[in-house]
Amino acid sequence: MLQMDAAREGRATEEMKSVASEEGLDVRELVEKIARGTVVIPKNRLSSHRAVGLGEGLRTKINANIGTSADASDLETELAKLDAAVEAGADAVMDLSTGGDIDAIRRAIVERSPVPVGTVPIYQAAVRARRDGRGMISMTADDMLGAVEDHAKDGVDFVTVHCGVTLEVAEHCRRTPRIADVVSRGGSFLMEWMAHNGRENPLYERYDDLLDMCREYDLTISLGDGLRPGALADANDAAQVAELTVISELVFRARARGVQTIVEGPGHVPLHLVEASVDLEKSLCDGAPFYVLGPLVTDVAPGYDHVGAAIGGAIAAMAGADFLCYVTPAEHLRLPTVDDVREGVYTLRVAAHAADVGKGIPGAREWDDRLSQARRSLDWEEVIRLSLDPEKAKAFRDASPPKDDELCTMCGEFCAIRKMTQVREREGG
Amino acid sequence: MLQMDAAREGRATEEMKSVASEEGLDVRELVEKIARGTVVIPKNRLSSHRAVGLGEGLRTKINANIGTSADASDLETELAKLDAAVEAGADAVMDLSTGGDIDAIRRAIVERSPVPVGTVPIYQAAVRARRDGRGMISMTADDMLGAVEDHAKDGVDFVTVHCGVTLEVAEHCRRTPRIADVVSRGGSFLMEWMAHNGRENPLYERYDDLLDMCREYDLTISLGDGLRPGALADANDAAQVAELTVISELVFRARARGVQTIVEGPGHVPLHLVEASVDLEKSLCDGAPFYVLGPLVTDVAPGYDHVGAAIGGAIAAMAGADFLCYVTPAEHLRLPTVDDVREGVYTLRVAAHAADVGKGIPGAREWDDRLSQARRSLDWEEVIRLSLDPEKAKAFRDASPPKDDELCTMCGEFCAIRKMTQVREREGG
Repeated sequence: MLQMDAAREGRATEEMKSVASEEGLDVRELVEKIARGTVVIPKNRLSSHRAVGLGEGLRTKINANIGTSADASDLETELAKLDAAVEAGADAVMDLSTGGDIDAIRRAIVERSPVPVGTVPIYQAAVRARRDGRGMISMTADDMLGAVEDHAKDGVDFVTVHCGVTLEVAEHCRRTPRIADVVSRGGSFLMEWMAHNGRENPLYERYDDLLDMCREYDLTISLGDGLRPGALADANDAAQVAELTVISELVFRARARGVQTIVEGPGHVPLHLVEASVDLEKSLCDGAPFYVLGPLVTDVAPGYDHVGAAIGGAIAAMAGADFLCYVTPAEHLRLPTVDDVREGVYTLRVAAHAADVGKGIPGAREWDDRLSQARRSLDWEEVIRLSLDPEKAKAFRDASPPKDDELCTMCGEFCAIRKMTQVREREGG
Repeated sequence: MLQMDAAREGRATEEMKSVASEEGLDVRELVEKIARGTVVIPKNRLSSHRAVGLGEGLRTKINANIGTSADASDLETELAKLDAAVEAGADAVMDLSTGGDIDAIRRAIVERSPVPVGTVPIYQAAVRARRDGRGMISMTADDMLGAVEDHAKDGVDFVTVHCGVTLEVAEHCRRTPRIADVVSRGGSFLMEWMAHNGRENPLYERYDDLLDMCREYDLTISLGDGLRPGALADANDAAQVAELTVISELVFRARARGVQTIVEGPGHVPLHLVEASVDLEKSLCDGAPFYVLGPLVTDVAPGYDHVGAAIGGAIAAMAGADFLCYVTPAEHLRLPTVDDVREGVYTLRVAAHAADVGKGIPGAREWDDRLSQARRSLDWEEVIRLSLDPEKAKAFRDASPPKDDELCTMCGEFCAIRKMTQVREREGG
């Protein structure tokens, strides 16, 4: 039975029970949110991945994009990225491979991952068409839907589908002055396909068939924002919002069929528009879980885009975004390395946790308080144990050993914490 | 003539003209803000450092803390940190040395720095008292004020003085339940001193003498927040706000004497309280420039505290904070290395710039647009030239050379930007 169907009958599945327990929530409340579609648990009925909840009132989750490109396509490296992402605390991974044996890579990732796995099946369709020598523009509707089914059969839990890039939306985009035009790979494939074939986007036209397929596997759909802004200048513009109005329709249609749905968001958004961007998605899409890529709050920081994404992600999550796609320091420059993946996950976890504290998610602030209590006691072992990334914290401290084990080399003997302990002891004594 | 006195007579000094031109502002407007005290230009009349404006309507500035501790006190390393900070774009540096020959270190930094230099003279007084074998608690009022004068004579442009940590405020702190008590070094020195001597803080008691000295050198005072929160749990509490109400009085008294004043702020602040923290300073201190340390939006991220500070700093700057003290990845773990300094400055510059874009600071968004236009044209040379940190951007790209020079290894041949260029060319042709 599908998660959403079960929830609508008031039944808590094993996955719901697990998520409720993990999040410290009342399971009844969770069931209601799943029934309404404001929370989803992306889990293919064929997969044995961990049940992870995304949405209203839950802890903000992090996704790590991994996968090959034609320029760098080594399976072992991708599995090492998967391990690094999971170890760093990613709640989900997406395999975006477009290079090498992408079927084998996807299957290996699905097999090995303990967390939900997402993909973008149109990449598969495009790569196949290209390898067959037909070129992407000759993809058929069946190629596109077939790729989704192939991924579903492999146990993928959620798929990005750019169903909102319709002919009408493409026309909006053409009329909207943009600096960066279309920066989504899937979006650009469909823009080219529609421009060449003069026909409607098959993922929109055959949306009902897609929903049937999703029902078969309890596949969650992530409605991709093919026209997401790729520059601050393009944020919240008519092209983006036109697509979001179509996505709104698609959310309601999916929910009517009991298909769990999340909505993807930007991209590049100036700081003062991040909240509006989240608010708009929440109102247009009736509170559907919002999955944002960053957003990046500046275009000028290649090499530091993980930081821009952490700023945007924290503000977005505070405003209601539920699922943050990480951005690594390599963004805009190269395919991320294993180290980039690790840094990206931890960096976005800072953002997610900060937002969870700000929103009052149960249990979030307690972690900070525990660490600060250990810090107050100069209990370094406990400080490091409780750190987001104990390995990095330990390495930093070990690289600069203090003369006095109780202190650190930042303030040395002038440690305020130790001094205040002495002051208070004298006062108390 | 003092900056503030000149401004009040409606005269624009060379420094004001330089700041106005640098910021793209009308000089008359700037003169008015300096007269009111909502903008300051910290520049000792003996110093030849660059004139940098801090405050209302100006670009958000970054300070880099450098300096030795008793555990790590090498002059050459500190000068290398100074160079790295300036090269990375720090607008000011503070020398917080407490180890080695701190007089020589300070003078070398003042001599070499092109940007304004700040210090915390009470460290000097404390180190001297300790080295004399007297212990910090035996510092006299003259020791404390004398240290300020020594720094002023050396050409330091701004000094942190914890004048707001009065006996009454200390009592407030004692009655306020806190996890981290007092984490400011200067604050803890004064707490200890007052507890031992049972006397008022000399920096408060002799504030008028301090202001006289400031007038002599046109020294800017930065009213330190000795009770800044060192844990999320302590943010915006009675201890912090009690000190801020005293600082409010001190701002008005300094302004009445024509002494330029900035106010220091937290610290550790949960995301949802950052804006309130800035609003409170702005209302209590009549719009005095606000200089925040981060703020850090989580306690759990040692090793990633620069990221937490970038999140907090961006939100604070957007809300009106004017001057962000960087936090490096080494915060809470060790004295920062040269690399930590560089990473800290660039990371906080992402935050400052993002806020400047959000606030509509003149010229800020244009930078993003220029870079995005270069990206749209696949003009990699220009993208790297316009990047915040061109060296890092180039290193990332060079480490993963694409098969096709026009692309990068992230998407390889499936580059959306190139595809869209082709689509648009066909449409246009």
